[in-house]
Amino acid sequence: MPERAFTAGLRLDRVRLNISESTVRRLSFYLRILEKTGDAGVDTLSSEELAERTGTTAAQVRKDLSLFGSFGKRGLGYAVPQLASELREILGLDRTWRVALVGGGRIGSALFEYGGFRHRGFEIVAVLDADPAKVGTIWGDVVLSDISNLEAVLRAESVDIVVLTIPAEAVPDVLDRVVAGGVRGILNFAPVQLRVPSDVTVKDVHMVMELEALSFALSQTGGE
Amino acid sequence: MPERAFTAGLRLDRVRLNISESTVRRLSFYLRILEKTGDAGVDTLSSEELAERTGTTAAQVRKDLSLFGSFGKRGLGYAVPQLASELREILGLDRTWRVALVGGGRIGSALFEYGGFRHRGFEIVAVLDADPAKVGTIWGDVVLSDISNLEAVLRAESVDIVVLTIPAEAVPDVLDRVVAGGVRGILNFAPVQLRVPSDVTVKDVHMVMELEALSFALSQTGGE
Repeated sequence: MPERAFTAGLRLDRVRLNISESTVRRLSFYLRILEKTGDAGVDTLSSEELAERTGTTAAQVRKDLSLFGSFGKRGLGYAVPQLASELREILGLDRTWRVALVGGGRIGSALFEYGGFRHRGFEIVAVLDADPAKVGTIWGDVVLSDISNLEAVLRAESVDIVVLTIPAEAVPDVLDRVVAGGVRGILNFAPVQLRVPSDVTVKDVHMVMELEALSFALSQTGGE
Repeated sequence: MPERAFTAGLRLDRVRLNISESTVRRLSFYLRILEKTGDAGVDTLSSEELAERTGTTAAQVRKDLSLFGSFGKRGLGYAVPQLASELREILGLDRTWRVALVGGGRIGSALFEYGGFRHRGFEIVAVLDADPAKVGTIWGDVVLSDISNLEAVLRAESVDIVVLTIPAEAVPDVLDRVVAGGVRGILNFAPVQLRVPSDVTVKDVHMVMELEALSFALSQTGGE
């Protein structure tokens, strides 16, 4: 049997695979380590090394990657730049995603300032808010739009992903219009459970609520 | 049978209860709505109204709250300020938690600027970083400390919770020292799965990785 090459073309039909959220999370972890390792001039990395640096096991690394093809050579490890490139493709990061920030309040402006999204190909092409005092102000290279024009802005800017940072009570109305605007991916910071059609994907980020869950856990165990 | 009073003293022994993460999350949702409603001068709220505004069902609201006691009166709904107060107590938010921000980079400074933590009783009492150029600089009312003094700072400041925003490769060493410093709650922004003793609770926030998971999902469904 011929030796399997690096990044052999065994890619499965990913559309049919049911990949767990935790697997996708680990792919992101692996990618970060591979990129840092590659930047440091290292060419190969074993599954043990990759596991150690991402807080998982070598068996888990091999299992996760085997879902997408055959990477690496027994005894030699993974070719760092090639695997990084494959992971970017698997994660859909080999392209730019057009992002609208809906809600220009405290979280929205912190996210805009943070700047960590663009680095990964998530470009904020629109910011929208309901506050007349904010509409028309300039954020970086974006002019803040009136949320009453939401659907039109989403379509005009061909927005792929909405980052939702509005108050809970504004969500039902705005969410319907985000979906009507053709957006199929939402990163939700609003403190509410979003109900969306099955072809729309939602990921939640609730920083303060994670702290509240820590507070709850510490209180439970007698942490006074 | 006597009518049950608002916030009757039926509180169960919460230490023995195994409350799911999603229940705790919803308690945080309910609390936000109750506080906003109370601020607007509304005295009572039905489980239907609370459910509608948090994106869940009335049955779920009643089930979640019943874990902690008997709140509300049939046909009258919940007394808004009283239930908010009970939820703050249940979540451990009736006190101040002392928080150290470990990592003063891009995410760390965005979180510090954001300011949404203090509002909920999470007070950032220390910021630590490894960069000599940052040590000694002043952030709000905090002087940035050298991460080499981590355990000493954590103990001196009686830190309850660490917010971890350091690079993945720095995690193993720093994590051991956070635990050695007596901290039992960690809000982790580092792109790595933390391994901690069983008496330490970790909650993860991975904003860019949530976007990557969206990117993955949109790519899977033919989102070009």
